Parts: sequence; C-alpha cells; structure tokens
Amino acid sequence: RRCGFPEVVYGEGKSAETIIEIFRKQQEHGDTSLATRIDAEKGAALKASLPDGIYHEKGRTFRMPTDQPTWGNVGLVTAGTSDLPVAEEARETLRWMGIEPVFIQDVGVAGPHRFGEQAHKLSDADAVIVVAGMEGALPSVAGGHLACPVIAVPTSVGYGASFQGVAALLGMLNSCASNVTVVNIDAGFKGAYLAGLISLRVLQAKSQPES
Amino acid sequence: RRCGFPEVVYGEGKSAETIIEIFRKQQEHGDTSLATRIDAEKGAALKASLPDGIYHEKGRTFRMPTDQPTWGNVGLVTAGTSDLPVAEEARETLRWMGIEPVFIQDVGVAGPHRFGEQAHKLSDADAVIVVAGMEGALPSVAGGHLACPVIAVPTSVGYGASFQGVAALLGMLNSCASNVTVVNIDAGFKGAYLAGLISLRVLQAKSQPES
Amino acid sequence: RRCGFPEVVYGEGKSAETIIEIFRKQQEHGDTSLATRIDAEKGAALKASLPDGIYHEKGRTFRMPTDQPTWGNVGLVTAGTSDLPVAEEARETLRWMGIEPVFIQDVGVAGPHRFGEQAHKLSDADAVIVVAGMEGALPSVAGGHLACPVIAVPTSVGYGASFQGVAALLGMLNSCASNVTVVNIDAGFKGAYLAGLISLRVLQAKSQPES
Amino acid sequence: RRCGFPEVVYGEGKSAETIIEIFRKQQEHGDTSLATRIDAEKGAALKASLPDGIYHEKGRTFRMPTDQPTWGNVGLVTAGTSDLPVAEEARETLRWMGIEPVFIQDVGVAGPHRFGEQAHKLSDADAVIVVAGMEGALPSVAGGHLACPVIAVPTSVGYGASFQGVAALLGMLNSCASNVTVVNIDAGFKGAYLAGLISLRVLQAKSQPES
Amino acid sequence: RRCGFPEVVYGEGKSAETIIEIFRKQQEHGDTSLATRIDAEKGAALKASLPDGIYHEKGRTFRMPTDQPTWGNVGLVTAGTSDLPVAEEARETLRWMGIEPVFIQDVGVAGPHRFGEQAHKLSDADAVIVVAGMEGALPSVAGGHLACPVIAVPTSVGYGASFQGVAALLGMLNSCASNVTVVNIDAGFKGAYLAGLISLRVLQAKSQPES
Amino acid sequence: RRCGFPEVVYGEGKSAETIIEIFRKQQEHGDTSLATRIDAEKGAALKASLPDGIYHEKGRTFRMPTDQPTWGNVGLVTAGTSDLPVAEEARETLRWMGIEPVFIQDVGVAGPHRFGEQAHKLSDADAVIVVAGMEGALPSVAGGHLACPVIAVPTSVGYGASFQGVAALLGMLNSCASNVTVVNIDAGFKGAYLAGLISLRVLQAKSQPES
Amino acid sequence: RRCGFPEVVYGEGKSAETIIEIFRKQQEHGDTSLATRIDAEKGAALKASLPDGIYHEKGRTFRMPTDQPTWGNVGLVTAGTSDLPVAEEARETLRWMGIEPVFIQDVGVAGPHRFGEQAHKLSDADAVIVVAGMEGALPSVAGGHLACPVIAVPTSVGYGASFQGVAALLGMLNSCASNVTVVNIDAGFKGAYLAGLISLRVLQAKSQPES
Amino acid sequence: RRCGFPEVVYGEGKSAETIIEIFRKQQEHGDTSLATRIDAEKGAALKASLPDGIYHEKGRTFRMPTDQPTWGNVGLVTAGTSDLPVAEEARETLRWMGIEPVFIQDVGVAGPHRFGEQAHKLSDADAVIVVAGMEGALPSVAGGHLACPVIAVPTSVGYGASFQGVAALLGMLNSCASNVTVVNIDAGFKGAYLAGLISLRVLQAKSQPES
Ligand SMILES: Nc1ncnc2c1ncn2[C@@H]1O[C@H](COP(=O)(O)O)[C@@H](O)[C@H]1O
Ligand SMILES: Nc1ncnc2c1ncn2[C@@H]1O[C@H](COP(=O)(O)O)[C@@H](O)[C@H]1O
Ligand SMILES: Nc1ncnc2c1ncn2[C@@H]1O[C@H](COP(=O)(O)O)[C@@H](O)[C@H]1O
Ligand SMILES: Nc1ncnc2c1ncn2[C@@H]1O[C@H](COP(=O)(O)O)[C@@H](O)[C@H]1O
Ligand SMILES: [Mg+2]
Ligand SMILES: [Mg+2]
Ligand SMILES: [Mg+2]
Ligand SMILES: [Mg+2]
Ligand SMILES: [Mg+2]
Ligand SMILES: [Mg+2]
Ligand SMILES: [Mg+2]
Ligand SMILES: [Mg+2]
Repeated sequence: RRCGFPEVVYGEGKSAETIIEIFRKQQEHGDTSLATRIDAEKGAALKASLPDGIYHEKGRTFRMPTDQPTWGNVGLVTAGTSDLPVAEEARETLRWMGIEPVFIQDVGVAGPHRFGEQAHKLSDADAVIVVAGMEGALPSVAGGHLACPVIAVPTSVGYGASFQGVAALLGMLNSCASNVTVVNIDAGFKGAYLAGLISLRVLQAKSQPES
Repeated sequence: RRCGFPEVVYGEGKSAETIIEIFRKQQEHGDTSLATRIDAEKGAALKASLPDGIYHEKGRTFRMPTDQPTWGNVGLVTAGTSDLPVAEEARETLRWMGIEPVFIQDVGVAGPHRFGEQAHKLSDADAVIVVAGMEGALPSVAGGHLACPVIAVPTSVGYGASFQGVAALLGMLNSCASNVTVVNIDAGFKGAYLAGLISLRVLQAKSQPES
Repeated sequence: RRCGFPEVVYGEGKSAETIIEIFRKQQEHGDTSLATRIDAEKGAALKASLPDGIYHEKGRTFRMPTDQPTWGNVGLVTAGTSDLPVAEEARETLRWMGIEPVFIQDVGVAGPHRFGEQAHKLSDADAVIVVAGMEGALPSVAGGHLACPVIAVPTSVGYGASFQGVAALLGMLNSCASNVTVVNIDAGFKGAYLAGLISLRVLQAKSQPES
Repeated sequence: RRCGFPEVVYGEGKSAETIIEIFRKQQEHGDTSLATRIDAEKGAALKASLPDGIYHEKGRTFRMPTDQPTWGNVGLVTAGTSDLPVAEEARETLRWMGIEPVFIQDVGVAGPHRFGEQAHKLSDADAVIVVAGMEGALPSVAGGHLACPVIAVPTSVGYGASFQGVAALLGMLNSCASNVTVVNIDAGFKGAYLAGLISLRVLQAKSQPES
Repeated sequence: RRCGFPEVVYGEGKSAETIIEIFRKQQEHGDTSLATRIDAEKGAALKASLPDGIYHEKGRTFRMPTDQPTWGNVGLVTAGTSDLPVAEEARETLRWMGIEPVFIQDVGVAGPHRFGEQAHKLSDADAVIVVAGMEGALPSVAGGHLACPVIAVPTSVGYGASFQGVAALLGMLNSCASNVTVVNIDAGFKGAYLAGLISLRVLQAKSQPES
Repeated sequence: RRCGFPEVVYGEGKSAETIIEIFRKQQEHGDTSLATRIDAEKGAALKASLPDGIYHEKGRTFRMPTDQPTWGNVGLVTAGTSDLPVAEEARETLRWMGIEPVFIQDVGVAGPHRFGEQAHKLSDADAVIVVAGMEGALPSVAGGHLACPVIAVPTSVGYGASFQGVAALLGMLNSCASNVTVVNIDAGFKGAYLAGLISLRVLQAKSQPES
Repeated sequence: RRCGFPEVVYGEGKSAETIIEIFRKQQEHGDTSLATRIDAEKGAALKASLPDGIYHEKGRTFRMPTDQPTWGNVGLVTAGTSDLPVAEEARETLRWMGIEPVFIQDVGVAGPHRFGEQAHKLSDADAVIVVAGMEGALPSVAGGHLACPVIAVPTSVGYGASFQGVAALLGMLNSCASNVTVVNIDAGFKGAYLAGLISLRVLQAKSQPES
Repeated sequence: RRCGFPEVVYGEGKSAETIIEIFRKQQEHGDTSLATRIDAEKGAALKASLPDGIYHEKGRTFRMPTDQPTWGNVGLVTAGTSDLPVAEEARETLRWMGIEPVFIQDVGVAGPHRFGEQAHKLSDADAVIVVAGMEGALPSVAGGHLACPVIAVPTSVGYGASFQGVAALLGMLNSCASNVTVVNIDAGFKGAYLAGLISLRVLQAKSQPES
C-alpha cells in the first residue's frame, strides 16, 4: 500500500484467475482494485466472476466501483483521437483513485488555437496529464499556458519515423517548457497515478493548514 | 512569469553581457534571477558585474540572493559522487525558488541499505528529486520507500554502454515503481523546478483550507 | 548551374586557396558566389583576398555582394537564441539568392502566444523556414497558422536526449501539420535554398500569367 | 481549412462510421473529402454508404470525386514496383486537390539511364515528388536533373539494414542535391500535399501578375 | 561435450524429428539431453516419441530425466511474475545439469525490502542468477547484498521504452555493483549454464583439496 | 567490504586529495587499496603522497602493494595490441586481489591458429577474461576451446561501425558459445573482479572439502 | 543484362502473374530466369504455370533450369542450421549463374576446429561466401584461413541483442581480417551474385592469357 | 602473409618505434611494408628513421617503395572533395600491392552526368572501389553502369543526420544494384585490399589458362 493506494495489477501475462484472486483479497481488506492491460477476452472473464466490476474496453482496464465521493483537481488532455486508449487508461486510473478529471480532447498543436481556447478550464488543476503521439509537441504548448506541473504521456501513435512513440518521447523530454515531466510510452496509468498523488498532497494540505 | 517564477536564463551560447542585461531587467522588476550552464570564465564575468550574485562552480549556476525566508518540503538524493554537479544545479534552482532541500548523498543501490537508512528524513517531503547515472536504479528504490512523487534525473555519468545517460534514462522510464516520473538527462534544473512547483501547490493549499 | 543558381561551395575541408579560386572563376562568369561552413580563420583569409566579400561570423558564410534589387517573399523564424547560427546561414543564403526574408526571432512554443502574435507578418510568404532545436515543435505550430509550405530546419541545439538534433528532426518529420517538410539537422543552407526556389517559381509565374 | 483545403481524415484507428460522419459534414459544406490509411474492409464499408466515393485499393485512400477541371504542374516518380502503394496515396491526394500528376514509374538508380531518359517530361513541373525505398538514392539523381523543388518520400520497402525505411530516410536527408527536402517514411499524403501547395502558389501568381 | 556437458539443442527452427534424432544419439552415449525454445506443439511431438521426457510449458524446454542425485549451490531470483518463462528456462537447464536451485520469486526493487528479507537464503550460493525486465535494477541490489558472482539475465518484459529488453540489458551492463555480469536478453539457458559451471568448479575443488 | 574485498575507487571525477584520503583510511584498517581511471597527472599526485603505491600508466590504475603470496587460477587474453590498456586495468585489479594471471596477448581471430596454440596454458583456469574490440569474436573462439566460464570484456577499440565498442559488445552477447558472459565496454576492472571472485570460491572450496 | 546476367526478380510484393510474364519474356530471349523471396503459395502458382521451373522451399527461390555445364570455383559456408534458408538462396543464385559451389555446413566458431578441418576444400575458390547469424564471427575466422575474398552475409538468426541481424552485420563490418567484405542482412542473393561475378572474371581471364 | 601479402600495420595506438621495428623485420624478409592511420607527427618520425619510406599526408599512410613493375586493373572513384583522405588511403594501399588504379574524382550523384561520362574508363577494371559520404548513392549508380564487382567504402563525411557515415553505410548496404558490396566506414585500406585481391586472382588466371 505504497502511497496510500493498494497495488495495481499489471494484467499483461496474468491469467483471469490470478487477477480475480488478487481482487478478492483486496475486496476482503476493504481496498479498491484496478487492473490494467486487460484485453476484451480477459475483461469478459473478469466481468463474469466480478459482476460489479467495470471493464473499460478502450482503456483496457478493469476496476471495482467505489461509493466514495470524488475529490481532486486533475486535468487530462489529448492531442488526437488515436491517443484515446492511453487517455482512457489514465482516466480509469484517476477514477479508481476517486478523481474525475477535467477532460479536454483532440486539441493537437496543428490547430494552434484549440488548446488555448480551453486552457482556462485547467486553471485550477493541481496537475495536468497531456497524452500525445506523433511529434509530442502538445505538452510544451500546455506547459507554456499552465502554472502547474504537466505530466507528459507519449503514445505509440504514428507511423514511419515516429518509431512507436520514440519521437514523441524525445520531444517531451526536450520540452522547452520547464514544468513538463515525462513517463514511459503509453503509460497512461503512470501519468494518472502521479497526477493523482500530487492532487492528494494538495488535498491533505488543505486539511492541515500551516499553523 | 510562467508558474509564478520569472524566466530562467539557459546560459549555453549566451554572452555574459546578454545575461547581465537580462538580470538587470529582472532586478528592476523586483524579480529573482537564475542562470544555468555558466562555465567558470562566464561566472567570473557575471560576478564582476553583479558582485552580490552567487556563482556555484560545481552546479555551474549564477543567481541573485534573496532575503526571503525559505519554505517548502523537497528532498534531493544522489546515487554517487559523480552525480554531484547535476544535483548542485538542482539545489541552486531550489534555493532560487526559496527552498532549502533535505539533501542525501551517495546512497546508490549497490549499497542496498544506504538509502533505506536515511529514507525517514524524506517522510514529509512533497516531492523528492533523485539524481543518478549508470544504471539509474535509485529512483525505483526511492519510489518503493516513499509515498510522494519521485522526480528522476538521469545523469550522463558512466562509461561504455551507459551511452552518456541513455541507460539511466531508460531505466528510469521503465521503473516498476508507479510514483516515478522522469526529466531529460542532466536536467537538474527541470527536476528541481517541478519539485518546487509541487511544493508550492501544497504551500498554497495550506493557506486555502478546504471550507 | 542547377536551378538557375551557380554551385555553392561547402567550405568544410576545403582550403581558403581552393575556395578563392572557385570564387574567381564564378566572378569571371558574372556569377554570384557563396561558401558555407567557413570558420573565422578561413573567413579572414577569404576577406584578405576578396575584400568586397561579406563574411558572416555567426552564420559562418562568405559571399560576394550583388547590386541587384531584392525580390521574393520568404519568411524565416527561429525558436530560440541558440538557433541563430543556423538561421544566419539561411539568411545569408537567401541574400545570395537576392531575397531579404521577413525574420521573426525567439518565438519558441513554450511562449505559446509569441508565434501567433507575429504570424500575420508571414501571410504573404511563398514559403517559411522554421529553425528550431530541442523538441522541434515550432514548425507544427507555424504549419497550423500558415497556408504556405513550411520548411523545417532542426538544429543540434539542446542537451541530453536531444541527441544533437535527432529529437528535433524526429519531431519535425512526425509533425501533425500537413504542410511541413524537413531538411537535414543544421542545414540552414538547404532550408533557404528550397524556400528561395519556391519563391522563384512564384515570381516567374507572375511574369508568365495564365493565358 | 488550413491552406485552402479541408482537413484530411487519417483513417488509422477511426471507425467507418466516424469517417462517414466527417465526410457527410464536409459534403454539406460543399467541401471535397479525402481519407487515408483505409484498409479493404473499411473501404467497402465506406463505399456502401458513400457509393459515389472512390476507393483506391493500392493507395488505401477513399475520396469523393469532384467535377472541377484539373490544374497544376506536379511530377510523381517511383524507384520500383514496391513503392507503388505510397505513390498511389500521393496520386490520390493530388487528385483530391484537383491535380493529375505526370507519373513516371520504376526508374530506380541501378538502371542509371532510366530517370535521365524521362526527366524532360518533368521540365515544367512546379514540384516533383520522388518515392523510393532501399537506399533512397533516386531523389539525389532527380535533384541533379531538375531545377524545381524535389520532395523526397522514403518508403519502408526493403529488408535487413533498410530498417523499415530508415536507410532511405537518412539517404534523402543527406542528399548532396540542394533542392531535395524530405517528409516522413511512407508519407505519400504529405509529399503530395506539399507539392500541391507549391503548385497552387504558382497558379495563384499567374492570375496575380507582378504589376 | 564442451565443459563436461553434452551440447544443448537450440530448438528454434529445428523440426521435432531432428531433435528426436539428436536426443536418441545422446541417450545411446549415456548422455543427458536438453532442448530449449520448444513450443507447445513441438513439445507434444517430442513427448509422444520420448514419453520419459519432461516438457516444461512455461520454460519451453524438453529434457530427459536423470536418476543422479542433485548437487550444487545456485540461486535463482526473479523480479516479477512476467519474468517467469525465462526463469523456468534457467531452472530446467540447472536441473538438466543436476542442480536444484534456491528459487526466490517476485522480489523486484519497487518493493525494496522484498529481496533483502530473503537474501540470507542465498548466502551459500556459488553463483546467483537474477532474472529481471523493465528497468533491470534487481541485479544491482542483489550484487550489493551478495558476495558471490551475480549473473544478470535481462528479459524482454515491459512496454514502450523498454525496447524488448534493451533498457534492462543496459541497466545491468552499467550496474554499479562490481560482481554483476550479463548475458543476452531472455537467455535463461546461458545464465543457468554459467552459474552451473561455476558451481561445478567449486564442487570439483572440494574433492581436490589444496595440498 | 562486499565480497571480502574493500571498495575500489572509481577515479573519474574525483580529486587526488579525495582518493588519498580514502586510501589512508583503508590503510589504517589494514585493507588493500585500488583506484581505477587515474590519468597521468593524478597518478603523479598520488605517487607523491603515497610513494609505496604502484601507478600503472597503460592501465591507468593506482594500487597499494601487498606482501601476501599470490593465489588463484585466472587467464587473461587479448585480441590485439590496442586492447592492452583495458587488459592492464584487468591485470592490476587481479594483482590487487592477489592473483597473477596467465596472460596471453595478441591472439585475435584473424590469425585463427594463434589462440588454439596457446589454449593449453589455460586448461587449469577457474575463469578466463577475454578482452577484444572490433568484431569481438575472440570470446566465442575461447569459449569453444575452454571448459570454464569466459568473461568477455568488449573494448572501444576500432573505427567506423565499431561505434566505440558496441559492435564488440553485441558480438559477445550473441556468442554461440554457452560459457561466455559479458561486462560493460572497457570494463577491465569488472571482468577481473568477477574472475577473481570465481577463483576465490574455488580456493575456499579446496580448504572446505566435501565431507 | 548488367554484368552479363539478366535481371533477377525480387518477388516480395509482386504477383505470380507479374513474375510469370517476366519469366516468359526472358525465356523468349533465350535468357535464364531467377526470382527470389517466393513464398510457398506463390511458388506453387509459378510451378503450375512453368512446370519446368525449380522451386526451392527453404531458399524461397524459383528458377528455370539450364542445360549448360557448370563452371566456377565458389565456396559457400554456414555457421549453423538456422542460417540454411539464406545459404540456400545463395546456392540457388549460384546455380542460376551456372555454378555449383563447394558447400560446407554448420562450422560455427563455438566449435573452433570445425572450420579449420574443412578449410582445405576451399583452397581453390575464387571467392567464398560465409553465411552466419548471432555474433557473425565466422567470416573473420574464414578470412584468416583463406587467401581469397570472403563475402560475409549476416543473417537475422538469433534473439535478444542480435537485433535481427544487426549484431552479425556489425561484427562482419568490423572484421579484423582484411579480406572480408559485407552485404545486407539475409542477402543470400547478393553474396552469391558477387562471388559469381568474381569467379566469372577469373574464368574469362583463363581464356584471355596475358600475352 | 595471408593472401600473399605481408601483414599491414594498423598505426592507431602504436608508437613510431614499434612500427619501425615491424618494418625493419619485414625489410629483412624482403617484404613490402605498409602502415595506415599515421598522423603527421608519427609520419615525420618514421621518415626520419626510414628515409626511403613514402609518407602520404592526406591518406595518413607510410609505406616502403618497391621497384617492381605495376600490374592490375582496379578503378577508384570518389563522390566529392571531402572523400579524398579515404580514397588516398585506398590508393596508397593499392600502390603497396603494386597497382596504380584508374582514379576518377568528384563525380557525385548530384551531378548526374558526371559519372556516366567517365564510366568508359573503368570498362576493363576487375573491381572498382567507390568512396562516398553523405547519402552514399554513388556506388548504386556505378553498379548500374559497370559489369564488375563494386566495393563501396562509406566515409564519415557529412553533418547532422549523416551520423558520421552511418547514412552512407546504410545506403550502400541497401543498394539496389546487385554487384555492390560494402566495407566499414572510412575503411579505404580494406576496400583497396579486396579490389587488389580480386585483380590478383584474375592476373594469376591469365598465366594459368584453362586447359
Ligand atoms: N499499465 C501499467 N504500467 C506500468 N505499471 C503498472 C501498470 N499497471 C500496473 N502497474 C504497476 O505494476 C505493479 C504490479 O505489477 P505486478 O506485480 O506484475 O502485478 C504495481 O506496482 C503497479 O503500480
Ligand atoms: N552547408 C551546406 N549544406 C549542404 N549542402 C551544401 C552546403 N553548402 C554547399 N552545399 C552544396 O554542396 C555542393 C558543393 O559541394 P562541393 O563540391 O563539396 O563543394 C553544392 O551542390 C552545394 O549546393
Ligand atoms: N536458449 C538458448 N540460448 C542460447 N544458446 C542456446 C540455447 N539453447 C541452446 N543453445 C546453444 O546452442 C548450441 C546449439 O545450437 P544448434 O547447433 O543450432 O542446435 C549449443 O551450443 C547450445 O549451447
Ligand atoms: N586502416 C585499416 N583498417 C582496417 N584494418 C587494418 C587497417 N590497417 C591495417 N589493418 C589490418 O590490421 C591488422 C594489423 O593489426 P595490428 O596487429 O593491430 O597491427 C592487419 O591484419 C591489417 O590487415
Ligand atoms: Mg484530431
Ligand atoms: Mg559512491
Ligand atoms: Mg528564448
Ligand atoms: Mg524495378
Ligand atoms: Mg509483482
Ligand atoms: Mg595484432
Ligand atoms: Mg549447430
Ligand atoms: Mg563536389
């Protein structure tokens, strides 16, 4: 239970049975549960055994619902339609943490006004996740507009010299905006987890005012 | 003045004159000033013109001092002696932001107890910067011990297949700890800036308690 | 005399004597002359023999002046101060072709309004050269604002995972803007030459109106 | 409607339904429509809903026909038979812009006279697209023969050390011909779009003669 | 029979018949037999012809059992569940050599106490094999705890910038622990073979005491 | 004192003063001392303060002598003259451990009989270090001749597509000999340390005969 | 008909019909015919239309037989069983040229005596083709034994850090034997073609004795 | 004395004394002598001790002259002025073998007629060496014109994405001409040695006419 959250199951290469068993134990402890990288077939098997669970097809996640009220101030931004699967993994991770993010879609840099027009919606965010493939330029633009940390998630979207996300990754690491940090290619989970952690710190601080 | 801080001068390829002029303007506006990537010769020229300024030889930074009290909860950790220049760039950046970090040195993973023995010093940190070269494994270990975001700064320290920091960068991007995010190789400034931003959010939240 | 312009001398590895001899021959034929990659020492030697010639220190070019009136509509944009040497190679190449470009400096994407505020100056351009290092995102933004071809010139400016311009090159090749094409890293000459050729086509068309 | 043309649909990862809807809207606005990266199955679905549309199997494009007369002077050249799919994407893009290119096939450099014998057909071209895989040498040869801009499109054709088009891409970026510029691997659409834009500039200039 | 062991069959690209024939010959010579990289189908064919043979599904190995007593002191450690196939190839190789290793599972560095708590079980080992993917940091930690040679086996487990095991390989080659050496990605066989050879040397030395 | 040996000083980036202080402490504890990557100037400074110390110019090491008798069975082999600096770093490391290796020089694979003719000298070795640059083929040949573990040390010797040792490293990782393991490029120290550790295990076993 | 041989058909991406047509034309001109990269299905289609043709399953070639006597002195050597497909492409290419090579199999360097024992069979060869994957060391060994040109063909055989033949390619390019030259990964055809050309030169010289 | 020629000294990292000693021994045996990679200073030292020797500054070679008549039919071609140092290493190697090549300079592909106009001079060649940097396209063009083997030598000439000769190397390996084979980057010596060996075979055949 590092960071106050129970361990998340990385579904790749784990059988449905293994995952169900882990979820059962977490439920017994009163914990929430999330598994990532769950394909449709495995999702169906989980759903059959855990009918309350929520399978997200696009995000390839499975999680147990929670009846807690949502909290947190996190933004989630995508450059294009093809970045959606990674963004949905991020969104489901945030929901598992109890956060419903401000979600802004399809504002890639080739339409240069698109991000700017919606940036005001993110002015309260404690952290903003920016998901982008191809040249990965959107986090730099977002970093220029925003005062909070920007967590850039490169995606493997693209072709040719995108090299399965390497071009986007390098672009983001070399961002000329100082408030941009980067996670692994297609790591929607990690981007969301970090943004959620930052928002949690802020939430805790609000209830622990500086004396 | 993105993020509440004035723009930092990237010194590489700028003349001392150019930098002095920028600093003068910032001083006139009552702003603080920081320049990075300042070699010894340029540092001497800056010092001659701006005798109050602080040149840090190892960190290759030049900044104007501030008489504000320090604030913030940031940790700064290095794996080995050779990572010190990048860590000092980070430390000077934090000081420019007004933060004196908890600094833990030389606790690389080959001495597996070293980090664990001092981890308790970081339990209050809002964010921890981990600077490491070679295999870049220290952020994963730190991420496992800590509940807060870990900002990993790979360094170009090493030889042979370290490829000037690429091995460390890849190790950090692939960290199995969920709370680790990464900035560019040798980007001490960026790592510090992000950690400072997170701590600033937390500070502001303390004075804006949840109603 | 491909493309109506005499051959340009690539100065790297050629002696001043060799270059002077080529220039002499070109002058005899009434041709203009340009040499690129000329360091300060070689520049001085050329200047001594060809006192009318113009050595550009930053752009590392040497060219013979022309008394022809300028023509053409070409834009030249840089992301940051460190991209200037490559931009100056481009500008001197354009001048050698007889073109004085509209030059817009230091409008990198981290200051997201900077380019947009000046984009109107480029509305008449037949082609725009965008010179940028680090993440190389500026050509995408420019491509989004402009209706003409954008010729992106990646520079080797940056550190760490910029890999001497590879990050910028990949970013530009993967630009989500359809009107962006790319030349080699630091190839200010090529970017300018192509922009000049496009503008020349347009000029010729104006004097050959569609019947 | 950047550059006077409506947005083109990148079909990868979009459903037939999504694409049909975009096309419907474009038709309502009286716009032309083009979608790229459309496989056979999606092509059939589009054809069923939009029976006037033209599916190009080799080029994997779908576009709505236009009854406008053709215009423009663009050349399109391929090195070998295997480069045809990328060339057909380019040709369909040009047709969508209203241009029927001069098309020269299978003139790769190993048959050194092949290109030269047909180069005269391209003497009027405003821009020439050269599509080549393997060592990507054809654009250099074309650049040597032609006075206009050459837009090189590397293809992922080849095996072994061709690295899915990287060898061709690098060859083209390093072309010793000054009038060669490059787009992404397999980016037939981009190559065509840029050539079309250049030709459009020239066309517009003909109707706006220099006063 | 290099190193006292008969040649092992690398099953990739060999037919079941070829492998059976080699095994038959080895059995006739009284030798043990091992084949690696045997998929399920080939495994079934081998089992049908050699019913005494042991097919290991996860490790993808097939070997003939031996009635010799086990010997040797070798440790085998994995970072995560997904590294198991490579670890099982290693374990079956050790069994073929006659060694039953001390096997410690799922002690990756993000759970920083996990390895340390079990390290005492390896204090007698002549060599320890550490199998890990992602950032490949576990061998460094193991190297810090142990006094014997550590043979690191990187696995192709991971996604994005793990590049099919390259990140782990580089991490291991750059280990700051002096007693870590590395074999190829996914080379469970090689890691085991080397550890077995070292343990054999030690065994032989025990029966040849220093005079 | 991992593995029974005191920590070795990696001299790169450490001042002579720092190293002298570490050596002084080790001498006080009755420990041996070794520093690697010591250039000529730093070597002279160490020699001035520690006149008993042995500076090895080619191997760039500095160590304190020991009056213990030598022990151990380790082989050390080089492919060519240019591999000597790395081999000398390895030899000095072995000497610091108390081992004088069997040293065979200049037996690269292009002279195919060279290694075979001397292989008999290594028949008693507990481990053999093979140092080679360029194509790095010698460890495979050695592995084929020998029954013991072969520790391959790639060197950065070569030009062009040797890529500073990458070609040799890859060759060694892909060795078709099962008893070959690999350390970092130019890592003479590590190769020696591992070989010494193996030989130490064997030595200890001789004094602890199987009961 | 460059080099006296008709053009060879690279079958990848060509339909059976296209290939049959080319073959028909070549037969009409009295030429021989060869197609490479022909999979089983395409091979069957060719065989159905051209029943005299010879399909080689392993080598994936299809060629028309010739009734000319064989000529030439070419050696063909493989390192391991898995290199056979590439070697068979080479052998069929040689047969199409009229040459039956001396074929030596499975003499990889891990069995260091294997090549040496058979090298005498190649003493008359005008050129020797060496096909090897993994570390690609065999051409160096062959180059050391032989006085004639050695044409090295790297194969994509291997796993992990073999990177689909890159390790072998680099090894061969960096061979310390002076008489080794290299063709593309898996380029059995090219290796054979070059060896055949060399042998043809020698044959022609025999009938044109120095006067 | 592989291949009938004494061993050539690779001068990099060898002292003048070592080289002089090797040369003295070769002279005593009546052998010819060649050393490559000899910088100006070492060249002067060699010249002082061996005053008959020939130092070639551009090619960085030192060789002992021979009074034998020249023989052989080898072509040597360069793309540009900057490829000259590598070409001169090749030419001096050929001279050491006794061959004076047909030398054609500065016929790079951007001037597409240049090579074709001089190709006839190479019609008798037994092998042609083509030295080229940047995109490395010249060997393909040469291969298309010539019937003999073409040995391509990539040079590290270029900038940006030429990656010190990698672009040229890849271009040459992927040549669409069947008669092109490749040696290492800047390996003028190797290219020449192979061409010389081929010509030697042909010479020997002339004196051994087919019976
Ligand atoms: N999509 C993901 N990407 C990266 N890490 C993940 C992902 N999903 C789960 N994890 C992490 O993987 C660990 C669980 O790994 P495992 O023990 O293999 O299930 C947990 O620490 C999670 O934080
Ligand atoms: N900086 C440059 N980058 C790329 N090409 C150049 C440059 N300067 C000159 N050139 C081209 O290089 C060719 C001249 O090469 P050279 O014969 O070596 O002088 C001409 O075709 C020029 O167009
Ligand atoms: N999984 C494996 N990885 C690496 N080498 C192996 C593996 N399995 C068998 N080998 C080696 O491959 C060689 C046999 O290759 P082959 O002749 O192709 O069967 C033997 O020397 C084995 O030691
Ligand atoms: N410039 C060069 N490039 C590649 N190999 C060379 C070169 N010069 C000499 N050699 C080869 O290097 C070997 C000599 O290496 P060494 O023993 O280090 O002098 C001989 O086999 C030569 O054929
Ligand atoms: Mg979009
Ligand atoms: Mg330390
Ligand atoms: Mg700026
Ligand atoms: Mg063709
Ligand atoms: Mg786990
Ligand atoms: Mg030697
Ligand atoms: Mg074999
Ligand atoms: Mg030239």
